[in-house]
Amino acid sequence: MVITSKTNENIKKIYRLKDKKYRKEYKLYLVEGLKMTREAIEKGLPIENIVVSEEIKDEIFYTDKTLVVTKEIIKHLSDEVTPQGVLAVMKMPENLPFAPTGDCILLDRIQDAGNLGTIIRSAVAFNIKEIYLYNCVDLYNTKTIRSSMSGIFSIKAYSGDRIKECLKDIPLLCADMSGERLEDFIPYDKQCIVIGNEGNGVSDEIRSICNKTISIPMEKDMESLNAGVACSIIAYKLYVSKKNN
Amino acid sequence: MVITSKTNENIKKIYRLKDKKYRKEYKLYLVEGLKMTREAIEKGLPIENIVVSEEIKDEIFYTDKTLVVTKEIIKHLSDEVTPQGVLAVMKMPENLPFAPTGDCILLDRIQDAGNLGTIIRSAVAFNIKEIYLYNCVDLYNTKTIRSSMSGIFSIKAYSGDRIKECLKDIPLLCADMSGERLEDFIPYDKQCIVIGNEGNGVSDEIRSICNKTISIPMEKDMESLNAGVACSIIAYKLYVSKKNN
Repeated sequence: MVITSKTNENIKKIYRLKDKKYRKEYKLYLVEGLKMTREAIEKGLPIENIVVSEEIKDEIFYTDKTLVVTKEIIKHLSDEVTPQGVLAVMKMPENLPFAPTGDCILLDRIQDAGNLGTIIRSAVAFNIKEIYLYNCVDLYNTKTIRSSMSGIFSIKAYSGDRIKECLKDIPLLCADMSGERLEDFIPYDKQCIVIGNEGNGVSDEIRSICNKTISIPMEKDMESLNAGVACSIIAYKLYVSKKNN
Repeated sequence: MVITSKTNENIKKIYRLKDKKYRKEYKLYLVEGLKMTREAIEKGLPIENIVVSEEIKDEIFYTDKTLVVTKEIIKHLSDEVTPQGVLAVMKMPENLPFAPTGDCILLDRIQDAGNLGTIIRSAVAFNIKEIYLYNCVDLYNTKTIRSSMSGIFSIKAYSGDRIKECLKDIPLLCADMSGERLEDFIPYDKQCIVIGNEGNGVSDEIRSICNKTISIPMEKDMESLNAGVACSIIAYKLYVSKKNN
């Protein structure tokens, strides 16, 4: 049976997932596209529903969780200009505090969804598996998910109020304009990269718990790097240092 | 005199600069905000007009090129959600071919305006002063300019059809998933970093003129990095290599 109406209860519920409030309430989030949906299936991640347009329904493994819908319904649910015709409704992992097991990242009030996604993408690329979000943009908004390039499926994240407790036993490296040059810095066994807000950098509150300040050398012509770029360069440096040891 | 009407000829012309077609026709582009406008003035860059809202007109150096307008006009012209109240109408530099004088960047069909801006920001930070745009998103769109963080004022760019000729005497380093590891690569005196389209990487056409392929080592879990991040990491690596020599 093909769902054709926007007032279908399932569709209404899924549509609400565009809104952070309902994502939190239902503990569900949306991912888009064939690639990410297939990856979610292959990784055995908890899927609530798969929504697929009738035209391409044979391209996705069919289960009792699959909702076949019209192109119009996909367009209604999608965040893309040209939707591929498939979305997965994913169950959100619990937001529980955890201590980092290796290098990790603490983001202090990152507000740009694209930056957050880019940071997750780079983290996964450079073998960082854990991330802490302090008053950041929502991890599960569509733009973050899209720019994470399915990194969202690999990263473990925590955004509750026990971050400081989680990070009490790991050196915190505050990324800033002045501090030890990244090139001179000898990495610890494990550490936490701290990246601050796009406009204002790391807040005094978070700075006060940092153990070291690290700077990326650059020309005076530019005040700072994009937050995602800065985080990626530091993560890259840690990654290759470890590879070379 | 405060301009209050959207139908004022100056305002109509400036409004059209939101459209690439008119930017090209008038050879003008828009920058927003106090910081960028002040920087344009300080650097002595060619300014056609400064548009400032009456409330903050004293914060900007007043000349015969200044148009004082209402808050509503600023809102009409602005691309920001909360406009600062000042825009500068800048004269576009000529789009003339040039040979690179040092390290440079060739972007092959970069389509995301934010990525282009981020790349310019990092280029300026890492002392790369020249950039070649091959079928990329427009250099002068507002999002590129904003994310370049005034890097747009420092970078020299060319986007015409003589790019290959310009780059015939410099080694072209194609950034790809396989190739010489960036960590092992010994930089030339000068080189051109080649970054491909966000979805498809470097095209065969551009690849065929490259001299070397460089890869950023990463985990298999992630297919690739964000184009802006990849470019920034390579630029950073070249920058610190030179600093250490």
